[in-house]
Amino acid sequence: MNVKSISRTVGLILLITGIFQLFPLLIAVIDHEPRNILAYIESLCLILLVGSALLLFSRGGNRMFSAQEGFAATGLSWIFMSAFGALPFFLSGQIPSYVDAFFEMVSGFTTTGASILTDVEALSRCNLFWRSFSHWLGGMGVLVFLLAVVPGARKNGGTGIYLMRAESPGPSVDKLTPHLRQTAMILYGIYILLTALCIVCLLLGGMPVFDSFCIAFGTAGTGGFAIKNSSMGGYSYFLQTVVTVFMFLFGVNFSLYYMLLLRKFKAVFKNEELRLYFGIAASSIVLIAINISRMYNTVYESVHHAAFQVVSIMTTTGYGTVDFEQWPAFSKAILLSLMFIGASAGSTGGGLKVSRVLLLMKSIRRTIRKALHPRRVQPVYMDGRAVSEEVCDNVNAYLAIYCVILVLSFAIISVDGFSIGTNFSAVASCFNNIGPGFELVGATQNFSIYSDLSKIILSLDMLLGRLEIFPLLLLLSPDTWSRRR
Amino acid sequence: MNVKSISRTVGLILLITGIFQLFPLLIAVIDHEPRNILAYIESLCLILLVGSALLLFSRGGNRMFSAQEGFAATGLSWIFMSAFGALPFFLSGQIPSYVDAFFEMVSGFTTTGASILTDVEALSRCNLFWRSFSHWLGGMGVLVFLLAVVPGARKNGGTGIYLMRAESPGPSVDKLTPHLRQTAMILYGIYILLTALCIVCLLLGGMPVFDSFCIAFGTAGTGGFAIKNSSMGGYSYFLQTVVTVFMFLFGVNFSLYYMLLLRKFKAVFKNEELRLYFGIAASSIVLIAINISRMYNTVYESVHHAAFQVVSIMTTTGYGTVDFEQWPAFSKAILLSLMFIGASAGSTGGGLKVSRVLLLMKSIRRTIRKALHPRRVQPVYMDGRAVSEEVCDNVNAYLAIYCVILVLSFAIISVDGFSIGTNFSAVASCFNNIGPGFELVGATQNFSIYSDLSKIILSLDMLLGRLEIFPLLLLLSPDTWSRRR
Repeated sequence: MNVKSISRTVGLILLITGIFQLFPLLIAVIDHEPRNILAYIESLCLILLVGSALLLFSRGGNRMFSAQEGFAATGLSWIFMSAFGALPFFLSGQIPSYVDAFFEMVSGFTTTGASILTDVEALSRCNLFWRSFSHWLGGMGVLVFLLAVVPGARKNGGTGIYLMRAESPGPSVDKLTPHLRQTAMILYGIYILLTALCIVCLLLGGMPVFDSFCIAFGTAGTGGFAIKNSSMGGYSYFLQTVVTVFMFLFGVNFSLYYMLLLRKFKAVFKNEELRLYFGIAASSIVLIAINISRMYNTVYESVHHAAFQVVSIMTTTGYGTVDFEQWPAFSKAILLSLMFIGASAGSTGGGLKVSRVLLLMKSIRRTIRKALHPRRVQPVYMDGRAVSEEVCDNVNAYLAIYCVILVLSFAIISVDGFSIGTNFSAVASCFNNIGPGFELVGATQNFSIYSDLSKIILSLDMLLGRLEIFPLLLLLSPDTWSRRR
Repeated sequence: MNVKSISRTVGLILLITGIFQLFPLLIAVIDHEPRNILAYIESLCLILLVGSALLLFSRGGNRMFSAQEGFAATGLSWIFMSAFGALPFFLSGQIPSYVDAFFEMVSGFTTTGASILTDVEALSRCNLFWRSFSHWLGGMGVLVFLLAVVPGARKNGGTGIYLMRAESPGPSVDKLTPHLRQTAMILYGIYILLTALCIVCLLLGGMPVFDSFCIAFGTAGTGGFAIKNSSMGGYSYFLQTVVTVFMFLFGVNFSLYYMLLLRKFKAVFKNEELRLYFGIAASSIVLIAINISRMYNTVYESVHHAAFQVVSIMTTTGYGTVDFEQWPAFSKAILLSLMFIGASAGSTGGGLKVSRVLLLMKSIRRTIRKALHPRRVQPVYMDGRAVSEEVCDNVNAYLAIYCVILVLSFAIISVDGFSIGTNFSAVASCFNNIGPGFELVGATQNFSIYSDLSKIILSLDMLLGRLEIFPLLLLLSPDTWSRRR
């Protein structure tokens, strides 16, 4: 295990986290809040201390990664940046329990959007900004950012791909160009462009500047932290529609945007994942709009709220315009199912990912065909190309691990004594990085009801969901630590 | 598709169902119940008519099966025997709705034990007997019975294995001897012997004769239909303990009993599935006994009820001694998780099966190892032998289909508007052939709350669970019907 290479990555990630904390510090200065200014400065000092220590320790080591070390570095980076990112909330006294602050920060970076706060509006603007900004950072990934901007990272050459693979969602990673740094820069370029577009649209719709930035960060990262207690409920229908459209756009595989830039329109149009993503969203909207039509005055209203909520849940954002806990059970069941499907691979969304669901469907179909015609060779095709057996196997194994973690987490948090619906939807929501669940953790509720143990389990679920299990699982595997190089 | 061969099998199965209906008819005669006598005679006439018609139609065809035809024959047989087995309930007027009667019968044959009856004790003895007896028939499988006793079935030669494979639970079928008929006879021999032993123990414990037979049938088939509204709650601790022990025994892979007869003690002792089955049951009992200790006066009582309920749920029987709906949420979460694991492969129990869970765990471990050491070949071992890739793939695909059916069923029955916990546990309970769920379908409740649509979906789930999905799925697949031979 190349400990130096790992500690270098973790150290760099910590320092980047620190640099980004300068934004909320600036806001605290503008707002003349001495306690918050102090909190961010203390946090920055600690980050600087630990980050530099890690970098110093890593000096002289080689910077190559094995797959294993890439996973370990990614897992540890996310744990460290959450642990240190939570400091300002805790030090400012606005979230008095450190476990709560950690939960909130993990929820931010993993773009979950589940909160332990009963009154979001009581938070200072600097903390609100940091909370929303963490969505934006976590959405595309901090390690991808590292690959894109830090000059040293370029030198990793071929092995940086392991970091990217560990952090990027989906069954396989598209290298858009042969050069990793270029790929990372293109992804971030598209990301920044779309986010800017979202901010402009929100401003045009009359949203205040501060709100526009925070809401756009939450939309871009498909996170869902709002800055109002009513989430998106208090904004105009126009603004809600803007957010619906952008949530949907950020749930699309970013490599498709790159293909659009390259004018490969046909390939984008024929993309199977995009078609299924659109198909599932559209049919869910129709079903729910019909199901809730009696609750609203006009067809437009039903479709509007159904569309917002379906896209919000499916892209695993988690914003709300209405309290969908009041919707009929059938609508809630559809939303609960959408939680597991999630958004597209290579997007900022969570869940199993549409392409993984598609591959699972195709391998189910193949198994049926194999039972009928045992001797025929039957590869699985996706977008016209045969998918390797390794990817198929991994997708199947992923589902198995996914179910095991789901069941175990559910059993542990049940110790707190809430209902099956509450606990199951809490785990589903955190593990798939959505935010709200149902019943006691529903749209207008929060996660403050849970004990510290459950909050830690749910924080772990969020990290497992965001990093797609393996990086953290490998951290815990004795095999990883058994042989030092 | 060899339609004649399939129709012969379905015809024979129907006639066997008819022959077994002579028992409850006899009870109706003894009890002097003219309406019930008439109901069973009418039912027998219909069965005779349709069964003979199917046999007549099949004359002259060859009797060979392909894998595909074996699946189709099994799926259709189970649908037909449930549809016709439900007739007496309906014709006697004791279950006025045919959908309800069908649900009850499917629940019987699939050894689920979920009931739509609000007052079981209102049923006549003949119907109570038929209900419990259907558990016994469905437990080991009616097609296995056919293979064991009907002389003609012998002539199927090598292709009868497809029927057995389609009906027997677990990832692979053990052929105990090279001769299929002999294997089927050994299995039924062990089954009859253990059932007889259970009846004797119950009689020794002072249970009335009629009760002993019914309860033993429900235990042997791991079904769970009781003949009292309090399920097993009204019987003595001794009788409850007898049932606990036998439920556990019927949840063991029957091929292990055969190995015991062959004095292969070491192989039995080292059997990985048995060890895990025992380990999961024991640790669940300990956890629940501690969790519920405050509710009962003595440690013995806590352990007694915990053991009964854990074994009842894990073997997918579904008997109850207490209303476990009142237990703490953690205990309920453990029970809900056990529902999915289920009993051993090759037993009469349902669920995913312990060996499948074991294979899933092992393939998860392999996937982790593969991520660490991509170039190493890593087969999965079970009981010292390498498991074929095909079996591993099938287990993974099984989990995927299993999840899809779970989610779809859950979404559909949500139309009725009950809570997430109710709907989810109802589907989990029916699909895994258990019986009781939680909340509105809890231990002291029943399934009468659901609409006809939901009852049909849940009936389908029970059949899918009992036959392990493929036979029914293949029936619905266009590939099956596309080419006639």
